[in-house]
Amino acid sequence: MTKLRVHNLAVSLDGFATGEGRTFDAPFGHAGDRLMRWFLPTETFVASTGHEDEAIGAGTHGVDDAFAAATQRGIGAEIMGRGKFGPQLGPWEDESWRGWWGEEPPFHSPVIVLTHHERPDLSVGETQFLFRDVLPVEALALATEQAGGLDVRLGGGPTVVREFLAADLVDHLHVVVSPILLGRGVRLWDDLEALEQRFEVEVTVSPSGVVHYVFTRDPQ
Amino acid sequence: MTKLRVHNLAVSLDGFATGEGRTFDAPFGHAGDRLMRWFLPTETFVASTGHEDEAIGAGTHGVDDAFAAATQRGIGAEIMGRGKFGPQLGPWEDESWRGWWGEEPPFHSPVIVLTHHERPDLSVGETQFLFRDVLPVEALALATEQAGGLDVRLGGGPTVVREFLAADLVDHLHVVVSPILLGRGVRLWDDLEALEQRFEVEVTVSPSGVVHYVFTRDPQ
Repeated sequence: MTKLRVHNLAVSLDGFATGEGRTFDAPFGHAGDRLMRWFLPTETFVASTGHEDEAIGAGTHGVDDAFAAATQRGIGAEIMGRGKFGPQLGPWEDESWRGWWGEEPPFHSPVIVLTHHERPDLSVGETQFLFRDVLPVEALALATEQAGGLDVRLGGGPTVVREFLAADLVDHLHVVVSPILLGRGVRLWDDLEALEQRFEVEVTVSPSGVVHYVFTRDPQ
Repeated sequence: MTKLRVHNLAVSLDGFATGEGRTFDAPFGHAGDRLMRWFLPTETFVASTGHEDEAIGAGTHGVDDAFAAATQRGIGAEIMGRGKFGPQLGPWEDESWRGWWGEEPPFHSPVIVLTHHERPDLSVGETQFLFRDVLPVEALALATEQAGGLDVRLGGGPTVVREFLAADLVDHLHVVVSPILLGRGVRLWDDLEALEQRFEVEVTVSPSGVVHYVFTRDPQ
């Protein structure tokens, strides 16, 4: 059965999943790359860039990489908020923006972009972006149909993840807490009181200093 | 040299150090004992109650107990907010309240209680409570004088700890994050952006599911 999975959702110790002041040059706002520093040295990330990193070669293979690698496994479609697709607000005035990912986005499967503003579907490389103004449960039904029996990834950002958690639609939630305090931005955990009672929670610390939390709903 | 230390400050994954609705019967409000469940089975806590626990005997000796035991080591005085002394607000209308701890409080050394409202000093067992309306830096000077060359413990609550952290007076901060979401209450981490840049941070996960964060200022 298709599961809805969240992977590698990075938050600061004070709970912010992105900083303030997001722009085209700063997708995480004032957080810069600090939330993703655990991820950048992993073999999974290095391989995705298409070339070895001078400092770290082919990348690390520790627990951070093990979690990073799980992201792609068995995924047939993704759901994301429009904030992950780009920093624009309001109507789509410039349709030349085709996402952050260049001509071959890493999804290779349909991506549903949740937006209140109409925009035609868009193919970039092997990825098809479907812009839809639908409720979480409707988005999940559509993505499940697109996924062809595989799982659906909920790609973020934090506001979208919170909406799907509030609707109890998430089966697997992997959150990575970095030991930094951002002080401001968008919080992941707001209004999710007692969330842990609907999940089994496993906690693993990495030598990099981040803590991996895995929330599993209805474990067998 | 005297250091100012915070120990066993428990917060939820969403950053609350106490719940909403604190009363005489519920010192942590709606959080109940959930923030302290890692602590209750430790040998340190069981010994402090004066009798063995039926379920766990003399208590556990793992990493949670190791941290719990460090609380008392080399402490000559404590500073606490009035919220830790009792749930009253405003002027001290009933001086028969002598704290939560009965006739032999566990401090055995002077305790400075920060309050804007006058109250005579009070001796309970071996502990002397000194009620003072002073700034953090003044409280630390007074406590250092009282500590006789030993360290000073900053006992909480979260608002007081945040004030001392903002004033950069804390040398050692031990925070214990439980994998629960309280949703509401008093936050520890507000307005402490980039705190980690003034400290070395060590992260340890316990089999109990809590994560111990140790922040050390100016490590040698």
